[in-house]
Amino acid sequence: MAAAVQLLVAAAAAAMAAATVEVTWDVEYILWAPDCQQRVMIGINGRFPGPNITARAGDVISVTMNNKMHTEGVVIHWHGIRQFGTPWADGTASISQCAVNPGETFIYKFVADKPGTYFYHGHFGMQRAAGLYGSLIVLDSPEQPEPFRHQYDDGGELPMMLLSDWWHQNVYAQAAGLDGKDRHFEWIGEPQTILINGRGQFECTLGPTRKSFERLLNENVETCVDDQKMCSDQEKCLRRSECGPYCPRSQCAPVVFNVQQGKTYRLRIASTTSLSLLNVKIQGHKMTVVEADGNHVEPFVVDDIDIYSGESYSVLLKADQKPASYWISVGVRGRHPKTVPALAILSYGNGNAAAPSLQLPAGEPPVTPAWNDTQRSKAFTYSIRARKDTNQPPPAAADRQIFLLNTQNLMDGRYRWSINNVSLTLPATPYLGAFHHGLQDSAFDASGEPPAAFPEDYDVMRPPANNATTASDRVFRLRHGAVVDVVLQNANMLREEVSETHPWHLHGHDFWVLGYGDGRYDPAAHAAGLNAADPPLRNTAVVFPHGWTALRFVANNTGAWAFHCHIEPHLHMGMGVVFIEGEDRMHELDVPKDAMACGLVARTAATPLTPATPLPPSPAPAP
Amino acid sequence: MAAAVQLLVAAAAAAMAAATVEVTWDVEYILWAPDCQQRVMIGINGRFPGPNITARAGDVISVTMNNKMHTEGVVIHWHGIRQFGTPWADGTASISQCAVNPGETFIYKFVADKPGTYFYHGHFGMQRAAGLYGSLIVLDSPEQPEPFRHQYDDGGELPMMLLSDWWHQNVYAQAAGLDGKDRHFEWIGEPQTILINGRGQFECTLGPTRKSFERLLNENVETCVDDQKMCSDQEKCLRRSECGPYCPRSQCAPVVFNVQQGKTYRLRIASTTSLSLLNVKIQGHKMTVVEADGNHVEPFVVDDIDIYSGESYSVLLKADQKPASYWISVGVRGRHPKTVPALAILSYGNGNAAAPSLQLPAGEPPVTPAWNDTQRSKAFTYSIRARKDTNQPPPAAADRQIFLLNTQNLMDGRYRWSINNVSLTLPATPYLGAFHHGLQDSAFDASGEPPAAFPEDYDVMRPPANNATTASDRVFRLRHGAVVDVVLQNANMLREEVSETHPWHLHGHDFWVLGYGDGRYDPAAHAAGLNAADPPLRNTAVVFPHGWTALRFVANNTGAWAFHCHIEPHLHMGMGVVFIEGEDRMHELDVPKDAMACGLVARTAATPLTPATPLPPSPAPAP
Repeated sequence: MAAAVQLLVAAAAAAMAAATVEVTWDVEYILWAPDCQQRVMIGINGRFPGPNITARAGDVISVTMNNKMHTEGVVIHWHGIRQFGTPWADGTASISQCAVNPGETFIYKFVADKPGTYFYHGHFGMQRAAGLYGSLIVLDSPEQPEPFRHQYDDGGELPMMLLSDWWHQNVYAQAAGLDGKDRHFEWIGEPQTILINGRGQFECTLGPTRKSFERLLNENVETCVDDQKMCSDQEKCLRRSECGPYCPRSQCAPVVFNVQQGKTYRLRIASTTSLSLLNVKIQGHKMTVVEADGNHVEPFVVDDIDIYSGESYSVLLKADQKPASYWISVGVRGRHPKTVPALAILSYGNGNAAAPSLQLPAGEPPVTPAWNDTQRSKAFTYSIRARKDTNQPPPAAADRQIFLLNTQNLMDGRYRWSINNVSLTLPATPYLGAFHHGLQDSAFDASGEPPAAFPEDYDVMRPPANNATTASDRVFRLRHGAVVDVVLQNANMLREEVSETHPWHLHGHDFWVLGYGDGRYDPAAHAAGLNAADPPLRNTAVVFPHGWTALRFVANNTGAWAFHCHIEPHLHMGMGVVFIEGEDRMHELDVPKDAMACGLVARTAATPLTPATPLPPSPAPAP
Repeated sequence: MAAAVQLLVAAAAAAMAAATVEVTWDVEYILWAPDCQQRVMIGINGRFPGPNITARAGDVISVTMNNKMHTEGVVIHWHGIRQFGTPWADGTASISQCAVNPGETFIYKFVADKPGTYFYHGHFGMQRAAGLYGSLIVLDSPEQPEPFRHQYDDGGELPMMLLSDWWHQNVYAQAAGLDGKDRHFEWIGEPQTILINGRGQFECTLGPTRKSFERLLNENVETCVDDQKMCSDQEKCLRRSECGPYCPRSQCAPVVFNVQQGKTYRLRIASTTSLSLLNVKIQGHKMTVVEADGNHVEPFVVDDIDIYSGESYSVLLKADQKPASYWISVGVRGRHPKTVPALAILSYGNGNAAAPSLQLPAGEPPVTPAWNDTQRSKAFTYSIRARKDTNQPPPAAADRQIFLLNTQNLMDGRYRWSINNVSLTLPATPYLGAFHHGLQDSAFDASGEPPAAFPEDYDVMRPPANNATTASDRVFRLRHGAVVDVVLQNANMLREEVSETHPWHLHGHDFWVLGYGDGRYDPAAHAAGLNAADPPLRNTAVVFPHGWTALRFVANNTGAWAFHCHIEPHLHMGMGVVFIEGEDRMHELDVPKDAMACGLVARTAATPLTPATPLPPSPAPAP
C-alpha cells in the first residue's frame, strides 16, 4: 500500500512540468555547537548547516539571499551546477559577481541542469570553512532519467550525507596565520572534529570501544560523556547548546539513517571539507558506487569509499544484515590523522522515522583504511569509469593544451601555492563584470595570459630549486567551443620528499578525466595511454602526490570560471586559475545589475545627478 | 642647549604653511597578543594599535587606506574631526560613505581643523572592538594657539595614552550573542583586559602587591609571571608573541612614560573602549585638566580622572616628586569591575627614551575610586567648564528642540536599545550618497522623521511599561544653520532599579553641554538653570543613570552625521540617531565616486556598455 502510493506520487511528480523552487535565506552569524562546543559560524536562517535544497532536473532554483552579516560580503557557489546562460549566478566573488554587501539582497536564479548530488557553499575568503554550506539534490526527470533508478527501492532515498571538517579557531585567525610572514606563518593544522551533516563530537567517540581509534590516531580517545544532568544545564545546554550528544536538543547528536531490512537504498555522499580527504565505511555493509559529481558511473562494489573535498557520490546500499544498528565511520586519510573519526548510525528501525531512537550499535565502529595507503586511494579513484550504457566519450582531439604545475613557494617571506610559478590573486572588480562592461584592460592584468606550461627541466620529485613566486590576476582566455586539455602536474613541496594530494574543482563544467599517472607527465610516453573510451565525467579530480592527472573539457559556456584546488587554505594561498570563455559573447549576457555593482563597474558608472561644484575644505566655522 | 634647539624647531614649525600629512595604510587581520594571549585583530600595517598620526592645525591629512581583509568592508572614522566640507570622509558606513570593499582603496583627505587630542577607529559593525583604532594628535598653530601651551615645558609632550578594553571572544561571536533571540541572547560581559596603548596583562598584575586590587575586584589577583625562560619559548614567544610582559619583544609589556624631575608635562588621554568607563590615577601626582575633546577647559586640579568611551583630555603633570618610578592605574568604574586594573609606569629616568629600562615602581599601585561612586563621577563631569579666556558661548536660543529618551527594549525576542521607542537600523545605501544622488525616497524610509519627543507620562524611574520597540532607518533632517537643542533622557532598563551611563558622541560637530540633572528633564523647571555662560564644548557627553543631559549645536555642516552612544554593543543594538544637515546643499558637495559606489547609487548608475540581449537559461549542452 505504501509502495503503491509512492509509485503514484513518483508518477505525478514525473509528469509535472519544470517548476521553480523558491527559497529565501538570511545569511547571518550564529552561535552554534556543531561538536558540542559553541562557536560563531555563518549560518542560514538561524541554522547550520544551511537548508537542504531539493529540485528536479530542469527546475529553476531561485534563492533570495539576504546578507545579514554586519561587515562581511557574501556569495554562494552552487557546486556542480554548470550555470549555462547564467554565469553571474555561479557565486564566486571577484570572478562571477561582486560580493553581496551587508544589508543587501541578491537573487540566485539558475537551472538545475542535470540530476545529481550537489551542494552549495560560500566562495569568498574562507567563508566555506566558517560553516556556510548545505546540500543541493537534483532528482532525475523523465527527460533526464537516472539509469540506476530502478536498482533501489521506492522511498529508498536516504537523507544526504554531507561531510565536513571543523576548526575551533575562527577563519579570520586561520587566514591571518596563513598570511603570516616568516616564522609567524601558522598552518591551520588538523581539524578538531569531522562533521556529518554538521554534527560531530569533539575529542570523544560514541563508540563502545575506542581501542581501534586509539591505534589509528596513536593517541588516547575518550568516550563521550552520557550524563543526563548535562542536558538540563541552563547555561551550557539551554543557552549555549553545549549539551553533549545524548541530549534531546543537542546540536551534536549523531545522524541516524533509518532503513528497513531487505530494501536497497540510495545514499548520497558529498564532501565540503576545508582540508581533509575522508573515507566512509559502514559496519557490515558493502556499497555500490553509481554516481560521481552528478554523472553516471559504471557500478562497482566497495567496502569503503574515499571522498575528497568537492566530490560527491551516490552509492546503493542493501539493508541485507540482521535488524540492528550499525556504525558508519568517517575517518581522515591522506594526512596523518589527529582527529577522532566521526560516527553516524545505520539503524534497521521500526520505520518510525519521526522519532528515531538513539540506539547505539553493539559492535566496534569499522576502522577506515590506513591514512598513508596511497595505493588503495589510487585503486579506488582509477576504478571510476563512465557508465557503459550512458557513456558520452570526449572529442577525439584537443584544440589547446594547458599544463598546470602546482608548487609550494615563498613570496616576500610568505608561503604561497603557485601554478607555473604564478600565485592567483583576485581583482576587486569581478572578471565577468569587467568583460561585460569592456573594462578588462583596467580591472586586472590583461596584458597576457598566465604561463600555460612550465620548464622542461623542472624536477617534480624534489623541492623547487627556485622557491620564489610572483602573484598575478591574469586569466586564461578560451575561444568559445575550444576543446581544452589540462594536465595537472603535482610536485614536491618545499619540504623534502613530501607531496600532497589536491582535489581540483572546475566551475561551469564537467570534464573528462582522461588519466592519472606517477611522476612527470610526458606526452610522448603517456598521451597514447589516456582513456578516450570511457573516461568518467566529473567536476572535481584529484592529483596524487608526485603525480599527474589529465582532463579534457569543451569551452562552450560563456563566462568566467574558477578552476582551483578545493582545499580552502590552498585556494586562499593562491592555488587556482581562472578561465574566461567566449569573451566575444559576453555582451550578449543579461547580467543583473546587482551582480556587478561594485569596483570599477560601479565607479565608472556612478555619476551624481547634479554636476558637482568643488567645495574646498574650509577652515572650521563656529562649532 | 637642547631647550634652545627645541625652541628653534618649534619656531620653524610654527612658521611653516599648512602641510599635507600623507600616510598609506593596509588594514588587515593580524595575530597579536595585546594582553600576552594571541588573538586575531584588525591591525594597520601589521601592527596594533594603528599608527599614530600627528598633524598641525590646518594641515591636510591624507590617508590612503587599502582594505586587505578578505571578506570585510571597512571604514575609518576620525573621531573629533568635524569634516567641514568633506562629510564623505567622516568614515561612518551607511551614513557618510560606502564601506570600502576587500581589495579596494579609499583615500581619506580632510583638514585637521583644530588642535586637540583625537583618535580614529573603525565605524562599521563592531570593528572598533576588533582593534581597529589609533591616536590622532593635532598640534596647535600660530593661527590656532593653545592658551595652555606655555604651562608645560618645551619637549614636555608625553606620548598619548590611548585606553581601550579587550575581549578574548571575537567580535563576530559578540555580535551573534547580542543578536541572539530569547534565552540565546549573550551579553559581552566585562572585558578580559584593559589596554593602555594596546598593551595589557590578562588576569594578572605587574604590581608588587595585589591586595588592594583583590579588595577592588573581590577576587584573587595573580602577579604576572616574570620568568626569562618564557622569553625564549620558540612556539609561544617567538612565533605567537605570547611572551609575558617582561620579555624584550613582548607585545604586552607595560607602557613607560619617561619624565625628568622638575618639568611639567602634557599628557593626552583618550578612550576608545567598547564598554568601560575608566579612571586614571597616577601614584603621588595630581593632574590639571586643560583640554577636553579638542576644546579648552578652565583648568582644574584632580587626583584622578574619569574617562568615558569617546572622550579625550589633556592634563598637565608636574614631575615634582623624588626621582623614581610611579604607577599609573587604570581601573573600571560605572560597572561592577571584573577586570584587573591596567598599569603603566611614570619613570623619572635618565632621559634615555630610546632604551627605557623596565623599572617597576616600589609602592602599591593607586586604587581608582569605587566603581559605584556615581556622585564622584558627576562631580568630576560637572566641574568641566569652558576656559574663561577663550570661551565661545552658544547662541542664546534654539530653533529646534529634540528630546531623546533612551530605553532598553525587546523586538521579536531580541534585546534592542531604542530612542523614543525607535531602534536605529542603517540602510545599505549611505544617507549622504542617497541625498547627493536624489535617491533618498528609495534608499531609506524618508516618509517622516523619527519621533523627536516621548510620552509625557513616561516614567524614567521604572522599567518600561511597554517594552516592545520598532526599528527604523528614518533620520532627523535639519535646516542649514538651525540652532538645535538636544536633551538626552536616560531611563530605567528592563531590570528593576538599573540605569546605565551612556556616553553620546556627535559626528561633524562639537556641542555645548548646557547642563545635567537627575530624573526627568522638565523644561519649566530646568531650562532656566542651564548654563549658557560658560558651557564646555565637547563632541562626547555622558548621560548619567536616571538622568538627563542638555546639549546645543549649530547645524552648519552639510552632511549626514551620526549621534550615538559610544558603547560599541549599545550602538550595535540600535542606540543612535542620524542628523541630515543642509540637504538642499548636498548637490554642491564634490563627493568622490569611490565613497558612494555601492547600494542604490551603484545599481542605479551601472549600465552595461552594450545593451543586453536576454539569454534564456538553456538546458545543458554537452559537458
